[in-house]
Amino acid sequence: MSQEVTIVRKVLEANDRLAEELKNKFAEKNILCVNLMSSPGAGKTTLLERTLTDLKDEFRMAVIEGDLQTDNDAQRVAATGAQAVQVNTEGGCHLDSGMVLDSLKALNMDEIDILFVENVGNLVCPAEFEVGEDYKITLLSVAEGDDKPEKYPLMFHISAVMLLNKVDLLPYVDFDLEKASGHATKLNKDIKVMPISARTGENMEGWYSWLREKRAEKL
Amino acid sequence: MSQEVTIVRKVLEANDRLAEELKNKFAEKNILCVNLMSSPGAGKTTLLERTLTDLKDEFRMAVIEGDLQTDNDAQRVAATGAQAVQVNTEGGCHLDSGMVLDSLKALNMDEIDILFVENVGNLVCPAEFEVGEDYKITLLSVAEGDDKPEKYPLMFHISAVMLLNKVDLLPYVDFDLEKASGHATKLNKDIKVMPISARTGENMEGWYSWLREKRAEKL
Repeated sequence: MSQEVTIVRKVLEANDRLAEELKNKFAEKNILCVNLMSSPGAGKTTLLERTLTDLKDEFRMAVIEGDLQTDNDAQRVAATGAQAVQVNTEGGCHLDSGMVLDSLKALNMDEIDILFVENVGNLVCPAEFEVGEDYKITLLSVAEGDDKPEKYPLMFHISAVMLLNKVDLLPYVDFDLEKASGHATKLNKDIKVMPISARTGENMEGWYSWLREKRAEKL
Repeated sequence: MSQEVTIVRKVLEANDRLAEELKNKFAEKNILCVNLMSSPGAGKTTLLERTLTDLKDEFRMAVIEGDLQTDNDAQRVAATGAQAVQVNTEGGCHLDSGMVLDSLKALNMDEIDILFVENVGNLVCPAEFEVGEDYKITLLSVAEGDDKPEKYPLMFHISAVMLLNKVDLLPYVDFDLEKASGHATKLNKDIKVMPISARTGENMEGWYSWLREKRAEKL
């Protein structure tokens, strides 16, 4: 095995150990942790803004925002009243468990029912790094095309939910919902496919029901 | 310096050496090599389909297609009559010079004026790996949002052109052209910003003129 491959394996093993530590912390506090992943611009932050606003009377929610640079997204979600902390990866292409562990210091864990981790916009690398989450969620914007599950299979293989976002753009793009869902289901027979528009608020109720159900299972 | 950082530096240095080898090969054959990068679904393959069709009487063109899996994109571009070869990274998040060097074996270099390298859809990692290109081009779909240059700065810092694609969707999304161009220009004062729609063919002439000019400089 090359030195390079050995290093990659060690990095992943070290990450898995810290992910286990995070899982224990979240279990102890009954926190549901959700890892949101997607390409850049698929709508993760808009989804969070709407979810944090619509469910604010039901749950105490917090967000760990991953970005290469800027704290724009943490500011956007903090404007809803949720706890928010920005992690800048300084060019790094994914969040890892060490970053999430560090950023927990800035959050009051006794005041969180649901913790969202908004990963760096990247449909490849974040799929390889656990961050202590209970579930992985992939957003796919219909503007990206219906071939993405087939072309980026790992992300869809490991996700509990595929949120097909920006359905308000369906009349203006070439996107076959059946084709995208079919490919995702072929990769992962248990994946739940939810067509939504985080921008217009269309079909958000299914997503909210899913969050309620999964949070209830943590109690 | 940690072992991990040392390995990353060595990987990048080895890549740069192979990139130099590629540059020499392309110079010898007067081939213009263009590295196309973007998020998944920004429209790289659609841009190539149209470019290869519209310029087929002017230039002999070839494409190296990078994808995690599938050869869908190579099939799409080969349908235009261009030489095309698919590189599957098997989960890898970017192309590197070694992969490009290998894939040249499948192309007749005496019959190429312009070689397009379509990188893996990823706005982060491909920015770090030279592939012997003369120029780097970033596509940004307006559906991704006008904040992307600010949030993914390296990609825009190193690109000669930012193709703002899918301008046919401008009436249906919140995208401020001035804001996106402003951020890109702040990162890279020489970047050329070209709003286009590869799907409808709108404004492609500027892109074609750019290709003509850059190819002429290789002769």
